[in-house]
Amino acid sequence: LIPADIISKKRDGQALSKNELNYFIKEYLSGSITNSQMSALLMAIYFKGMSDRETFVLLDVMLQSGSILNFENSKEYIADKHSTGGIGDKVSLILAPLMAAGGLKIPMIAGRGLGFTGGTVDKIESIPNINTNPSMEVFKDWIIKNRCAIVVQSNKIAPADKKIYSLRNLTGTVPSLPLICSSILSKKIAEGIQGLVMDIKIGNGAFLKTKKDAISLGRLITNIGTFYDIKTNIVFSSMDQPLGRFAGLACEVTEALECLNGNGPNDTMRITFELGSHLFLQAGIVNDKNAALKKMQALIDSKKALKYFKSMVNLQGGQLDDFKNITKPKYEQLVHSNKSGIINFMDTEKIGWALLDLGCGYKKPDDKLDYTAGIEFYKKVGDEVKYNDPLYRVFNSDLIRLEKVSHLLLDTFNIGNKGKPLELIL
Amino acid sequence: LIPADIISKKRDGQALSKNELNYFIKEYLSGSITNSQMSALLMAIYFKGMSDRETFVLLDVMLQSGSILNFENSKEYIADKHSTGGIGDKVSLILAPLMAAGGLKIPMIAGRGLGFTGGTVDKIESIPNINTNPSMEVFKDWIIKNRCAIVVQSNKIAPADKKIYSLRNLTGTVPSLPLICSSILSKKIAEGIQGLVMDIKIGNGAFLKTKKDAISLGRLITNIGTFYDIKTNIVFSSMDQPLGRFAGLACEVTEALECLNGNGPNDTMRITFELGSHLFLQAGIVNDKNAALKKMQALIDSKKALKYFKSMVNLQGGQLDDFKNITKPKYEQLVHSNKSGIINFMDTEKIGWALLDLGCGYKKPDDKLDYTAGIEFYKKVGDEVKYNDPLYRVFNSDLIRLEKVSHLLLDTFNIGNKGKPLELIL
Repeated sequence: LIPADIISKKRDGQALSKNELNYFIKEYLSGSITNSQMSALLMAIYFKGMSDRETFVLLDVMLQSGSILNFENSKEYIADKHSTGGIGDKVSLILAPLMAAGGLKIPMIAGRGLGFTGGTVDKIESIPNINTNPSMEVFKDWIIKNRCAIVVQSNKIAPADKKIYSLRNLTGTVPSLPLICSSILSKKIAEGIQGLVMDIKIGNGAFLKTKKDAISLGRLITNIGTFYDIKTNIVFSSMDQPLGRFAGLACEVTEALECLNGNGPNDTMRITFELGSHLFLQAGIVNDKNAALKKMQALIDSKKALKYFKSMVNLQGGQLDDFKNITKPKYEQLVHSNKSGIINFMDTEKIGWALLDLGCGYKKPDDKLDYTAGIEFYKKVGDEVKYNDPLYRVFNSDLIRLEKVSHLLLDTFNIGNKGKPLELIL
Repeated sequence: LIPADIISKKRDGQALSKNELNYFIKEYLSGSITNSQMSALLMAIYFKGMSDRETFVLLDVMLQSGSILNFENSKEYIADKHSTGGIGDKVSLILAPLMAAGGLKIPMIAGRGLGFTGGTVDKIESIPNINTNPSMEVFKDWIIKNRCAIVVQSNKIAPADKKIYSLRNLTGTVPSLPLICSSILSKKIAEGIQGLVMDIKIGNGAFLKTKKDAISLGRLITNIGTFYDIKTNIVFSSMDQPLGRFAGLACEVTEALECLNGNGPNDTMRITFELGSHLFLQAGIVNDKNAALKKMQALIDSKKALKYFKSMVNLQGGQLDDFKNITKPKYEQLVHSNKSGIINFMDTEKIGWALLDLGCGYKKPDDKLDYTAGIEFYKKVGDEVKYNDPLYRVFNSDLIRLEKVSHLLLDTFNIGNKGKPLELIL
């Protein structure tokens, strides 16, 4: 087995054998196959794809490279949610405690910001002192005690995926369905889950710009879920505008708290309930979607879901006291409408890149985040605006970056004569 | 300028700007762009190609990354020959002194074995004590004194090409026309030449398997040559069987000496004279091809070309005394015909890989070569053979490797009812 030959084989469009993939990834983890060779293979996979069988093998090698959580004889249904990422998507922060309040275990391994999309772990880390990188034992203990926790992928969970993932971000090999799929699922399966609901986002602020790609990914994830005996549901949702009223770091935690307090924006609650109803149905604790929606509303109204959020933060060492004051931005600016009319387009990806510039994400792997940074959206697509109406409130604690981003944002919306609100669930 | 964005741009099929290519290669040389990122870009170039304009820029950045030889006011025409590589191709060893004897300057920067093809530098290094890696000043001095020298690419000549080239061999990104072309020509142009003749080999023992690819490469090289004011001729030749009677290391030097002594095999002399006649015509020292052929034959007959070979080796510190004895292999075996008939096919690439196994090339970058190793070919395609006739004599100084290779070689020819000699010049 010669690494360059394996790369050339994939480059020429041939399927790699289990043996070849196994060898390549193991030697890569051990360091005898270099980052350069892995990058070349990843780019060849980008162009030539992988069969389902190859994707299964890739995923399994990545999964087996680390530990797998095992909640022996759990009385509760163990599940998780994953989103392909977007702008203002704080649903995980709401859904994890909501599902835990409903009786499910949610051992959530979440991600950091990637490309132009925000990261759940970055957002929750705006809570002072919160620990998102516990040992496997402590993570398991948190789940047993509180039924939900949100942590980052440790070196113990699918380390091959972790090593490959950091390479993909630097080498233009992120948007490949078999790579996306094996990466997502190697982490999720390592959580020892029985059920999964996937929020596959489509639109100008999502990795997947077309329905076709989204359906391919959904099909692949369902196939693999089935293979691993994981009940899998897919929700396709629109990412043609930011989700909710806020996008950023601490401001999204604050908005999630608002949602758990019963004051969340419609779109955010709608998608949260859509995803949650699948998990409640999978778990068999309700008989139909209507009952699931009612149960979730009750868990919000009774503040039981909020209680699970607070106990989760508490177990993870985080301090919510005075959170809003601590994460108050030093500066803010308004971005105004340049004419009267109806908003008919928001360039959501560009808003995502602007959030990076504001301090909410990584342009280089070791960039320092500004937890106070974010954008408040006063208007959505389909809304009428007048000339000089404020559209966005932009805030952070670095005036130079703020000025730059305010300018960038002028180029992220279009106002015309007509336009209507977007469908959220596709 | 963000490296991952540049990679993604090429991945998506867009042309890179001069600025982007410049930045990427310079930062790669300085180390701030990693091997992984370069590998990913190379693989994207493999798939998406490059426009002529991009190839020009790539070549120019690689060229400008190092020194360029300058023979101020040279009275002699300065030229070189390059071959895309094959099995048994010792033409450079004959052509360089032949052209020097005819009055041209040939500052030849040659290569080491690559993939399954042999390397001129590896072959000449079978001569004890020969120095193939002089400083630029010494190289220039050799050329001024003797009009020809054969050296390896130093760190001073197109270092960007050198760094990229070693990566390509390990990452399955060798067979890309713009990469091949810019790599060849960055070295050749750095020699300060006025003329170039390219031997583009086509066939089962060449990198280029089809006429179409060969013509594309020829077109690209001619365009770039013209751009740099270099007179450029292309010869297309067949590599569907080894060239000459020997392939290996010292044995090819010995065969080259035979050629310079007037005892060379027809095919080797034919292609040498074909290439040489282009250079003599370019230089204007003959008026037609016939005169060129006559002049070359005279330089062989008078031993003047041989004298230039010997003085070249001498200047480079090599010792030819007792060369045949010093490089005598310890072991040899014959490979016999398994039936009677006519040889109608030789798997030349497989013979090339067998030569690597024998000790004539690199399976890993730091493999040690066996200069005594090689194969003598008793028969060519179109020759009649009887059952048990010897076809190859295989030799080296490592019995285990020899046994292995003798077995491999049984699978490198086909004997049928009919077959005819191959055309050499296409």
